[in-house]
Amino acid sequence: MSATTTYAPAPHPVPDTAPSAAKALVETHREALEAALQAVGDRSYHSRYPESPSPRVYGEGAAAAGQQAFEAHLTRRFEALADQPATDGWVGAEVSPFGPQLRVEYPHQDVDRLLSAVTAGQRAWRDAGPEVRAAVCLEAVDRIHARSFEIAHSVMHTAGQPFVMAFQAAGPHAQDRALEAIAYALFEQRRVPASVVWEKPAKGEPLRMQKDYRVVPRGVALVIGCNTFPTWNSYPGLFASLATGNAVVVKPHPRAVLPLAISVAAIRETLRDSGFSPDLVTLAAEADGEGLAKTLALASTVRVIDYTGGPTFGAWLEREAGGAGKQVHTEKAGVNTVVIDSVPDLRGALGNLAFSFSLYSGQMCTTPQNVYVPRDGVDTDEGHLTFDELADRLGQAVQRLTGDDAKAVEVLGATVNDTVRAGAAGLAALADTAGGRVVLDSRQVAHPTYPDAVVRTPGLVAVDVEAAKVYEQECFGPVVLLVATDSTEQSLRRFTETVREHGAMTAAVYSTSEQVIDDAREAAADAGVALSENLNGAVFVNQTAAFSDLHGTGANPAANSAYTDGAFVANRFRVVTSRRHV
Amino acid sequence: MSATTTYAPAPHPVPDTAPSAAKALVETHREALEAALQAVGDRSYHSRYPESPSPRVYGEGAAAAGQQAFEAHLTRRFEALADQPATDGWVGAEVSPFGPQLRVEYPHQDVDRLLSAVTAGQRAWRDAGPEVRAAVCLEAVDRIHARSFEIAHSVMHTAGQPFVMAFQAAGPHAQDRALEAIAYALFEQRRVPASVVWEKPAKGEPLRMQKDYRVVPRGVALVIGCNTFPTWNSYPGLFASLATGNAVVVKPHPRAVLPLAISVAAIRETLRDSGFSPDLVTLAAEADGEGLAKTLALASTVRVIDYTGGPTFGAWLEREAGGAGKQVHTEKAGVNTVVIDSVPDLRGALGNLAFSFSLYSGQMCTTPQNVYVPRDGVDTDEGHLTFDELADRLGQAVQRLTGDDAKAVEVLGATVNDTVRAGAAGLAALADTAGGRVVLDSRQVAHPTYPDAVVRTPGLVAVDVEAAKVYEQECFGPVVLLVATDSTEQSLRRFTETVREHGAMTAAVYSTSEQVIDDAREAAADAGVALSENLNGAVFVNQTAAFSDLHGTGANPAANSAYTDGAFVANRFRVVTSRRHV
Repeated sequence: MSATTTYAPAPHPVPDTAPSAAKALVETHREALEAALQAVGDRSYHSRYPESPSPRVYGEGAAAAGQQAFEAHLTRRFEALADQPATDGWVGAEVSPFGPQLRVEYPHQDVDRLLSAVTAGQRAWRDAGPEVRAAVCLEAVDRIHARSFEIAHSVMHTAGQPFVMAFQAAGPHAQDRALEAIAYALFEQRRVPASVVWEKPAKGEPLRMQKDYRVVPRGVALVIGCNTFPTWNSYPGLFASLATGNAVVVKPHPRAVLPLAISVAAIRETLRDSGFSPDLVTLAAEADGEGLAKTLALASTVRVIDYTGGPTFGAWLEREAGGAGKQVHTEKAGVNTVVIDSVPDLRGALGNLAFSFSLYSGQMCTTPQNVYVPRDGVDTDEGHLTFDELADRLGQAVQRLTGDDAKAVEVLGATVNDTVRAGAAGLAALADTAGGRVVLDSRQVAHPTYPDAVVRTPGLVAVDVEAAKVYEQECFGPVVLLVATDSTEQSLRRFTETVREHGAMTAAVYSTSEQVIDDAREAAADAGVALSENLNGAVFVNQTAAFSDLHGTGANPAANSAYTDGAFVANRFRVVTSRRHV
Repeated sequence: MSATTTYAPAPHPVPDTAPSAAKALVETHREALEAALQAVGDRSYHSRYPESPSPRVYGEGAAAAGQQAFEAHLTRRFEALADQPATDGWVGAEVSPFGPQLRVEYPHQDVDRLLSAVTAGQRAWRDAGPEVRAAVCLEAVDRIHARSFEIAHSVMHTAGQPFVMAFQAAGPHAQDRALEAIAYALFEQRRVPASVVWEKPAKGEPLRMQKDYRVVPRGVALVIGCNTFPTWNSYPGLFASLATGNAVVVKPHPRAVLPLAISVAAIRETLRDSGFSPDLVTLAAEADGEGLAKTLALASTVRVIDYTGGPTFGAWLEREAGGAGKQVHTEKAGVNTVVIDSVPDLRGALGNLAFSFSLYSGQMCTTPQNVYVPRDGVDTDEGHLTFDELADRLGQAVQRLTGDDAKAVEVLGATVNDTVRAGAAGLAALADTAGGRVVLDSRQVAHPTYPDAVVRTPGLVAVDVEAAKVYEQECFGPVVLLVATDSTEQSLRRFTETVREHGAMTAAVYSTSEQVIDDAREAAADAGVALSENLNGAVFVNQTAAFSDLHGTGANPAANSAYTDGAFVANRFRVVTSRRHV
């Protein structure tokens, strides 16, 4: 429809005063940015960064070079950040979930000095305009991309992700999410043109005014990283804030600093090479228990906050920083849910769910936790299964996937902390509390390479729908609760109720009935959570594709934002007009 | 550039299940909506609703019929809202600032019953989709437009605006702002397509998924009206929330209910005629001092709040409701500023400023308050003027505009409350406190038609830049402070400092120097306030044009949002995806 194409936002002019290196990047990255804008517009498949770590894609020496680059960081100061502006010491106490201490130290920053230093370069960055900022940001992601193997090892040894997942999720997938945020930010800034001649008809000569619209940043943006997805969950906020003109302070989780240190170093290098202050992006590492996030969040110049982590601190941020007028984006926790009504492809569904339960030992904020199944059982393409039969089949599917230790660790990775380990070890007690049954206990796996790693297979516990107190809590890690309900109708009702109250990042439904699928869509819309239907292949409920799937909805308590939509970027900048007669 | 037109958001499909009357409105209003989308995209001149109250535009009998319609409301119950869902009594105690008591009563609502009733029709409204909602909203604005004269009288006799201003600002200008909000909301919802087939390349067959994206509302939206601009400041939030699927409760200021009662009645009628529940929009009138806004703001189902009014309650809303995760949009107060460095067209500038000071007795949130002038005076096209000479010339310009009582009241309107009156009456004391001089005292004007009206001309007080305590406070109403500074450099510095700390809705600069204008633009960008340069004609610093000028910036304490940009609408809805293999 032609009428709809006329108001497509056009690129802003590139200011003459922008550094020439930065202007060159606008040319270099023009096509890539337009392609990304196209993709976020139609939500079709798009990827700039190949997800396969194969040497055919990345080159023969890339994997080995990346590993060496990672190992070169160990037992040393991270000197690439030694030039940060407010260093008053060095901190670092990361321990790999696979066992070894990393013994890397990072420059610790004096908060007051840091916050005044980071804004020094903000005016030039602001005046460079949206096109330059987008191009420089994309260049930074490209440079991060060049270090994908190095980052993969650093994520494996801080988050505990299995290697291939660490490569994909913390590498190309995270980089695609970064580009998505940059594209959204660019589009949003383009929506208000740089200038217009406004002409109002009048009796004689029309009234004519020149109006210039200038994009101004909010101030300093703070990104608070998490332990399990240090890059994937940090890049969207980081690049959305940077691309809209804000200086960004990255506060990594004390146990997952290295992946963000490498990322920040790459961004700083890009900023410097493009003619801007590297201090527009800084790393604020802290000692465990220092409480730096709180201090930074309450600083008056910090105006935008992106947070991924536990719900307690997330709620504090929403209340205190949000109540103080800062833009706060949180991703916390929830009870991800699967509703099984009937199963069109049992074998496919079991394999798909087993993988979703097992990947990274269930330590994804998107891993399913509650599986609602009618207590009378379900119809499948292999005949009717009772509740217990389906539960056992799910248990067997998990066993098949995780039975061989050497193969299992490539899916499971390592558990990241004692809370996760205690949860996995306590299934019998959990079953007791709930009056339920351990369908499959969580098994401790001996890692063939890292004897100190605590690796756990998912455990399945069957409980009754009455045991709401148990399944309405988040059990982070490899714990799945199979909840016996009166009916699919009750399953859907409980699904909506629990998600509205306790949140969820993901949901799935299995049914052969179009009516039930429709009802599930209604329930998901009411709950405010995205729904995957009858997954049985290589797409998993706990994975979302950049440019197409929204990660989170912002419509339930698990997260107040989504990666990425207009709302995620729109309030990171403001527009200041100047107008005059012409 | 062709690459930029490809990702223009396309219209969503209109669901078959939408009411046929509503579907017809999509056709009726398609062109008007596309034209509005075009206008918000390029920020060019656009207006759907003619601002001239002339019979040539509105028809011979329109003015008289509107006045009769207004008068028919007086001394009666507002029966058009008698069908509201939770009526438990009748309230109303409006007194015209021009004297008469209105003696109109409105149905008072039981809050709990109201909030459960308003969501009853929300699902059908949600499922009708963005195109239907936009068309129905535009139809509602058209019906409001048909009552422009009736609304003009109702605003005159609640807000105290002079008649022509009441017609323009509360009528066509407010209606254009409503359409602007509807267009922005439509664009924002279109940005995520209704569905896509996603196809990821794979070794064999590509992975193919159908993904549907459903727009879901936040919940109930609350609009808290103000006394001075009951329609102009309420429509943007009201229609932005309604167009994105939310039920809207309108809580008018107890002294300015009638304009919103008429508006809500027109919207309810439109909703009913289009096949939707009228209770999607309701009026929650209250007795003075009832504190209904607080109760509604804290109700759990209320998720979006739009507020215009005093800074104390605005700050409470930001802290309490914002901290509770609600989307809170506030417009509060500030110290609007003019910086005079030199004057290219003295006669034009004096007339322009005098009108801006005088219009509606300075009771606009956009009226200039502080005028910074170098104590050494300024160069003008009529030669150099000392500070005192310029001050006196400004005073004379105000006197010329307001010297004739009968003409003056057509610009000044009436003062709206005792605080404004006390401020205007206390200029000598103010000058004493500040160690300054009354340049022109505020004069009480005898209204030729309404003897009980308290009408006040603007008063001008000259103070020194050292008297920051005086000019850093908002003096709402007809009070202008001329601040003598050391230099234009100091003027600009003080401008930025006071606006950053105390906020401003508007700013203006006069200078013949390109360098000073540039510096003023920098200062305005740093302060986060829009700048008007060398206004000397029929455009005034206190007026903004819908579709082109942003009202407020959201970048300083005066307001946390702007009319209208992406951020104003983007978080009023969320998107819920469902996906499946195809």
